[in-house]
Amino acid sequence: MNIDTLLLARWVIPIEPAHTVYENYAIAIHNGRILALLPQSQLDNYHAQTQVSLQHHVLMPGLINAHTHAAMNPLRGYADDLPLMTWLQEHIWPAERKLVSPNFVYDGSLHACAEMIRGGITCFNDMYFFPEQTARAVELAGMRAVIGLIMIDFPSAYAQNAKEYLHKGLQLHDQLRSRQLLTTAFAPHAPYTVSDAPLQEIATYAEELDIPIHMHVHETAAEVEQAVAQQGIRPLQRLHQLGLLSPRLLAVHMTQLLDDEIALLVRQGVQVLHCPESNLKLASGFCPLHKLMRAGVNVGLGTDGAASNNDLDMFGEMRSAALLAKAVAHDARAADAESVLRMATINSARALGLEDHIGSLEANKAADIIAIKLDSVETLPVFNPVSQLVYATGRQHVTDLWVAGKQLMKDRQLITLDSHEILSKVNEWQHILVTT
Amino acid sequence: MNIDTLLLARWVIPIEPAHTVYENYAIAIHNGRILALLPQSQLDNYHAQTQVSLQHHVLMPGLINAHTHAAMNPLRGYADDLPLMTWLQEHIWPAERKLVSPNFVYDGSLHACAEMIRGGITCFNDMYFFPEQTARAVELAGMRAVIGLIMIDFPSAYAQNAKEYLHKGLQLHDQLRSRQLLTTAFAPHAPYTVSDAPLQEIATYAEELDIPIHMHVHETAAEVEQAVAQQGIRPLQRLHQLGLLSPRLLAVHMTQLLDDEIALLVRQGVQVLHCPESNLKLASGFCPLHKLMRAGVNVGLGTDGAASNNDLDMFGEMRSAALLAKAVAHDARAADAESVLRMATINSARALGLEDHIGSLEANKAADIIAIKLDSVETLPVFNPVSQLVYATGRQHVTDLWVAGKQLMKDRQLITLDSHEILSKVNEWQHILVTT
Repeated sequence: MNIDTLLLARWVIPIEPAHTVYENYAIAIHNGRILALLPQSQLDNYHAQTQVSLQHHVLMPGLINAHTHAAMNPLRGYADDLPLMTWLQEHIWPAERKLVSPNFVYDGSLHACAEMIRGGITCFNDMYFFPEQTARAVELAGMRAVIGLIMIDFPSAYAQNAKEYLHKGLQLHDQLRSRQLLTTAFAPHAPYTVSDAPLQEIATYAEELDIPIHMHVHETAAEVEQAVAQQGIRPLQRLHQLGLLSPRLLAVHMTQLLDDEIALLVRQGVQVLHCPESNLKLASGFCPLHKLMRAGVNVGLGTDGAASNNDLDMFGEMRSAALLAKAVAHDARAADAESVLRMATINSARALGLEDHIGSLEANKAADIIAIKLDSVETLPVFNPVSQLVYATGRQHVTDLWVAGKQLMKDRQLITLDSHEILSKVNEWQHILVTT
Repeated sequence: MNIDTLLLARWVIPIEPAHTVYENYAIAIHNGRILALLPQSQLDNYHAQTQVSLQHHVLMPGLINAHTHAAMNPLRGYADDLPLMTWLQEHIWPAERKLVSPNFVYDGSLHACAEMIRGGITCFNDMYFFPEQTARAVELAGMRAVIGLIMIDFPSAYAQNAKEYLHKGLQLHDQLRSRQLLTTAFAPHAPYTVSDAPLQEIATYAEELDIPIHMHVHETAAEVEQAVAQQGIRPLQRLHQLGLLSPRLLAVHMTQLLDDEIALLVRQGVQVLHCPESNLKLASGFCPLHKLMRAGVNVGLGTDGAASNNDLDMFGEMRSAALLAKAVAHDARAADAESVLRMATINSARALGLEDHIGSLEANKAADIIAIKLDSVETLPVFNPVSQLVYATGRQHVTDLWVAGKQLMKDRQLITLDSHEILSKVNEWQHILVTT
């Protein structure tokens, strides 16, 4: 059988079935899809145009960054060591008022794509202004993404009011309908920045278009307290009354959760996107990951934007998620390596409505694959490759990356993007920000 | 003036004075010591044998890993997702009974030295069996270290009883007395593994020899509860009664601290060595870093050993320390970037009694220096290099490293160590462990 590509590796971690590590295995790829996973001793039937031998590597599904603001990459390190509201109101929002434009979003998104590819991320779920520019950047990069159709009560360079945000979002949804690697989600910023009427419209349209709703929810205690003071109910309850609690809702952060709210999430099938490093850095609180997992809530994992993290590093995020959950649960068995690897792959795919296409290495799924080299001083010995990926591997150990069978990084060299050009644009934006 | 070396860099962060970043500066080095820091425009008087131009780099003092067990590197990833006592009693101690020997300690320590040099660490404070073998490895590597004179109630391959541990420790102290880069500390393992009599002997000898006492203290709640149940007092109080609470005591972990215990630490001048990632991973608890800092306790930073971390990555540890402190303190301003950079340099130097020699870039101090390159996709833009080092930089961005003016890594290539040879030994130890 003539096929496009055969990847041979020391270890293959398919994610599905769970608790599986294949040794000396191969992945057969054709027309962007996985045909089969099989032992290297059984390759006689396959004649591949390209064969790649990865003797010291793990192959696994590309990581899915389930929550980010790609365009904010040029704001990395612009304002640190500040609480969320000071950070937003006195630093980030004023900077955004200066900078945000179609070009800024395009350049920043390209920067983020370069960083994500170099870190083993094949797909991300985004929320930002001028999302059509992020879509353009993603297409140039060759990545997969869920483009957020942003909604916020404030006027911005992108739109003046709820009606315009919604209109532009629906227009973009239509434009992207036929793209192979792009889907969309509504992205109302947060309960405290979007009023009831647009939220209800979004709930209706999300059903009609069959797309997710991506939203920051219960990020800080202050947000919850303010809502209780002003509206008499906690934000999650308000979203429930507005009809938003469903498997479509991707609730990001969720550091403030009562036990009966977790039960409500379970009943309504709400999905949680966990961003542990952003929550720590902004002192937002601890998401009760172990309780969510025990209750059976599907939890995906995201880095948040570079302005609040300050990196788009899913290896770091997996490690932080695992380490932090143990301390919060007072149980070193909580969030074991396998669980967080699933959070960063199949759980995130499920949250984004993409689990039939990505998140595991299974026949007929898209060939979104990464190779990680484990023969360095930092990564040896390897007793258990799953554990090694989460607790000892850095994103710099990712060597190769494919999306839908197309190679985007080869031996750490970017193929679709020119990082020199991207960085010269980033330096220009920095110059504008500090001089205007 | 003829000198050995001039290092020119875009940024120099001297640590002392605090809150200082020099731009386009140079460091003049002669006979292993820093002669001067000065602007690149004022170099006319210096004629250097070697001049290195680091145009996209930060120069700063080498990082000091204030608590590790270097020899345990070959046990990286051997047992994960387990609580401290299960991890120790059912996995690590049995593995150590199989493996620990002079050769294991030498090979494991070399592995750790290679990892630490590659990660920007110039000095470490160690605790393990056969410490003379760690000393040998450190000398081959060319690093600086404080070698722990281990004491534990259990017999081991190294020594049979308290008397033998102490005797061997004192012997090693004598042997190392004249070495330029090596000093020693007593290293009684923990209150729950060392009895009163040897602790009192150590307290006496530490005064006499003028060296620190390096000890795990209040690592877990269980340790404290058990002590209270068995001896009627908390371990810190017992150490106080035994005369161990002084500026000599380097108390590692300290996740369980009452407010009056913090006051006691301040009164006695005890130094704390913080290991946030190990504490998270073993679910040991949260060290109240912000309270210690506010009280004025000197806090250094360490990675702990590779078996419980699972890396010797001080960049990761700085980031974890900063992020975690904010969440624990409910204050995003807690443990800002500058503070944790000081923890990993001058504070650790002070704890180890080495502040006159290392921990900052000042005239007459040893030339223990690292260069970090900040021109990559992951590290741009640079608004504030201090913040960038803590929140966005990975250890892979360290390019060059000098100890006492001698270069140990050049453009990421190790000079004194052969990583190929080291890793083949590590693979042999792994084979022995899994097959015997």
